[in-house]
Amino acid sequence: MSLLVVGSVAFDSIKTPHGNKDRVLGGAATYFAIAASYFTDVRIVAVVGEDFTAKEEKVLLARGIDTSGIVRESGKSFFWAGEYGDNVNEAKTLDTQLGVFAAFNPQVPDTFKDSKYVFLANIDPVLQVNVRKQIGGAKFVAGDTMNYWINGSRQQLGEMLKVVDALLINDNEAKMMANDQSLPRAAQAILKMGPKALVIKHGEYGATVFFQDGAFGIGRHPFRAPTLPIERVTDPTGAGDSFAGGFMGYIASQGELTRDVFKRAMFYGGVMGSFAVEAFGTERLQTLTREEIEERYKIFRELTHIE
Amino acid sequence: MSLLVVGSVAFDSIKTPHGNKDRVLGGAATYFAIAASYFTDVRIVAVVGEDFTAKEEKVLLARGIDTSGIVRESGKSFFWAGEYGDNVNEAKTLDTQLGVFAAFNPQVPDTFKDSKYVFLANIDPVLQVNVRKQIGGAKFVAGDTMNYWINGSRQQLGEMLKVVDALLINDNEAKMMANDQSLPRAAQAILKMGPKALVIKHGEYGATVFFQDGAFGIGRHPFRAPTLPIERVTDPTGAGDSFAGGFMGYIASQGELTRDVFKRAMFYGGVMGSFAVEAFGTERLQTLTREEIEERYKIFRELTHIE
Repeated sequence: MSLLVVGSVAFDSIKTPHGNKDRVLGGAATYFAIAASYFTDVRIVAVVGEDFTAKEEKVLLARGIDTSGIVRESGKSFFWAGEYGDNVNEAKTLDTQLGVFAAFNPQVPDTFKDSKYVFLANIDPVLQVNVRKQIGGAKFVAGDTMNYWINGSRQQLGEMLKVVDALLINDNEAKMMANDQSLPRAAQAILKMGPKALVIKHGEYGATVFFQDGAFGIGRHPFRAPTLPIERVTDPTGAGDSFAGGFMGYIASQGELTRDVFKRAMFYGGVMGSFAVEAFGTERLQTLTREEIEERYKIFRELTHIE
Repeated sequence: MSLLVVGSVAFDSIKTPHGNKDRVLGGAATYFAIAASYFTDVRIVAVVGEDFTAKEEKVLLARGIDTSGIVRESGKSFFWAGEYGDNVNEAKTLDTQLGVFAAFNPQVPDTFKDSKYVFLANIDPVLQVNVRKQIGGAKFVAGDTMNYWINGSRQQLGEMLKVVDALLINDNEAKMMANDQSLPRAAQAILKMGPKALVIKHGEYGATVFFQDGAFGIGRHPFRAPTLPIERVTDPTGAGDSFAGGFMGYIASQGELTRDVFKRAMFYGGVMGSFAVEAFGTERLQTLTREEIEERYKIFRELTHIE
């Protein structure tokens, strides 16, 4: 079933202990869409500037992604420059230029309004709520956010949390949102704010999904997925968005929201995140095969399963 | 099969957001022995002062632990006072009084020298090596250490690493020991220092066991065990030692060192650690039943297993 992602398509300049890359294709929606494209049909709604050319679009088209919702404006695309030190879990932002993204007001094309699965990548929660309203028939909607909105737009974020089925955030964001240093307690507090499922990403330690009692008729027991212990993390950028792409892509490819579907989606999320960090930008994600994905899924299974 | 632990038996004064307790029975060997006692016969070698009375010994005897290797010296037992804030992974030491532990020179009684499984809890690596030499016929020996020895006794620690089959340490200790901020790389570096298996404890994120290639004939793929997302951590003291007790206790209870035995041992380690933090000191560990342990093992399984 078709999966719609609304978010940033951008250029990133990245410095890590393994090298530098200037102006590679990036942005949450890009990583998400490419990762999800291995599981289901993907549509993007985004805004780009004149620096987004046929060359960049080809990367998305090659993965069968519907780019007809990408609006071109005069100006520059969102640009981010960042650096990672030895601790791959922490990026140091060197530069941010919003460009045409500053005036992003996403309109879902009529042809996308039948989307059953939607991912609201990290943008202003007011815009996230607007997008949600444009897709009345969605079956499962998930969202992301970041510290900036948690600190500065708490009320608007509260509205967003009421219109998503699932929220995907990281440890620090969860603790900040709930104002509680205990992750399990923070999880329960956030579930009370609206989302039926909460996926907390722990970086190199994997991710845990928590459920509201009775959500999706699958019980409230949490489920934890691993990541691979990777000795060489070439570029951590986009790992979380790739996780979200694998997670949502797998869910969209399945008819039902069963407990097993959620569990496998958590594993596929981890798998796609683990591929993303193996090369700069989306390089590794672009050339995967479904066989490689299944092979790594088996390694994740072996890493965690006793029998 | 009999499991010997050599380490501290102590008194702890503990302050957490959930309350205070003064001078409760603690020490690495105590937590370890009580946790392991649910799986196998346990023997302790330790030194205590005059403050260690029949009341404290009864706690160990009630769990069938052989206390004949606990030497009483005139003076006070090891005493530690610590405080935990909102971050349960970090203890702030308020006071340490070594007492009779300062002159601890563990001698393994003849009746313990047939021990097949041995845990060298965190003490001076020179003493750990001495103990190892006293038990020539051991089948599987594991050790722990801490930052103090990693910083100050690196050469002696190197000797210890050559005489243990497994090392159990936490994330920070592993990174410090290998001088590498990447945990997977640190793991490989430490395996090269000697131990065939390396268990790295990630606190609330569980633990991962790494293997030397070909170790125990079970392949080198790592295995990751979870912990329970616990909303109320009453007292984190001893969680790591309780993990080690569950891990070693289960291994000692099995005849062989198979891959499945290691995997289940990782789960039982996590289970015992998760019980330890539910009450102050060893309180919760003292009154468990094997049924409660199996029930929690099933919850750990549900938390991680897809089918």
